[in-house]
Amino acid sequence: MKELEDRILKDGVVLGGEVLKVDNFLNHQIDPKLMQSIGNEFADYFSDKGITRIVTIESSGIAPAVFAGLALGVPVVFARKQKSLTLTDELYSTEVYSFTKNATSTIVISKKFLDKTDRILLIDDFLANGQAAKGLIRLCKAANAQVMGVGIVIEKSFQIGRQLLEEENYDVYSLARIRAFEEGQVKFVEKEME
Amino acid sequence: MKELEDRILKDGVVLGGEVLKVDNFLNHQIDPKLMQSIGNEFADYFSDKGITRIVTIESSGIAPAVFAGLALGVPVVFARKQKSLTLTDELYSTEVYSFTKNATSTIVISKKFLDKTDRILLIDDFLANGQAAKGLIRLCKAANAQVMGVGIVIEKSFQIGRQLLEEENYDVYSLARIRAFEEGQVKFVEKEME
Repeated sequence: MKELEDRILKDGVVLGGEVLKVDNFLNHQIDPKLMQSIGNEFADYFSDKGITRIVTIESSGIAPAVFAGLALGVPVVFARKQKSLTLTDELYSTEVYSFTKNATSTIVISKKFLDKTDRILLIDDFLANGQAAKGLIRLCKAANAQVMGVGIVIEKSFQIGRQLLEEENYDVYSLARIRAFEEGQVKFVEKEME
Repeated sequence: MKELEDRILKDGVVLGGEVLKVDNFLNHQIDPKLMQSIGNEFADYFSDKGITRIVTIESSGIAPAVFAGLALGVPVVFARKQKSLTLTDELYSTEVYSFTKNATSTIVISKKFLDKTDRILLIDDFLANGQAAKGLIRLCKAANAQVMGVGIVIEKSFQIGRQLLEEENYDVYSLARIRAFEEGQVKFVEKEME
């Protein structure tokens, strides 16, 4: 998605070897107009999948997910991150390991908001090692809901997340795919390489 | 806002004496269409205030705030909740006490995203004791930004939040104002009482 790639080149900041900071428009400050374009793009791509609900994770997944939800006419559920495992019959929960933070957190979704008849579109801001996405998939599976696709705003294609999801045959649609950071510059996957 | 009041009557659940659970459309599952109506309503009401930026707090403030931001054509910044105070020159931070959770948390905004020329609209999902709103106001004041108004989705008018904000002359616009919970039923402030 050219609008997003241009914005990453303009405002993204490469930190250390593998971290891209996009807090100017996605992770802390949000550009609503760009989020609307992103949401509409996800909705277009997954329009024929019979999506009944979108699942994302707080906090940076919420903005792109609500615009996709508006365009598809479906509700959005955001998984909550908890500090500790709260065991309750009312929640689906799973643990997610973050390589960036070197820490495990628990994510939960109320059982009320996932149903076995659901056809789910997962949306998240980043795909890197795929642990968050796989956690969301486990929550959906626990409800016997069907995951119809995964929409990602920014994919770090040099990490293993996409491969892990494709091995399980998920349709992963990433709006910006980063091949590498070279001398602090973002290099995207070229179209013919996709 | 009738659409919101009707939704609260239909899907809100009164827990204990003073808690209203609206996780069906605002706090866990989100209704994007309702959030769009809410955002547009805030944008209309504050349209002549020269708003340059919206400030909210993760996670439930984000959806109404991005739609208001889209309608007003301004960026949205969400304050992040931190477990502990991370002292850094790059952040404005303040402590916020939650009566519901009986706990203090730290909220932060990067200094990059608040400017002394800013005319800020604050948006939050709930106004009860006003501690979160007052915390956001302190962050804006630390940046010498001007708070032009406060947009609230649901106000518990029997708690002290609105009074605290009005004492400091803030224009508080709440889309649903709850006068009381009577026998588990939500009672709104009547128009002539506003």
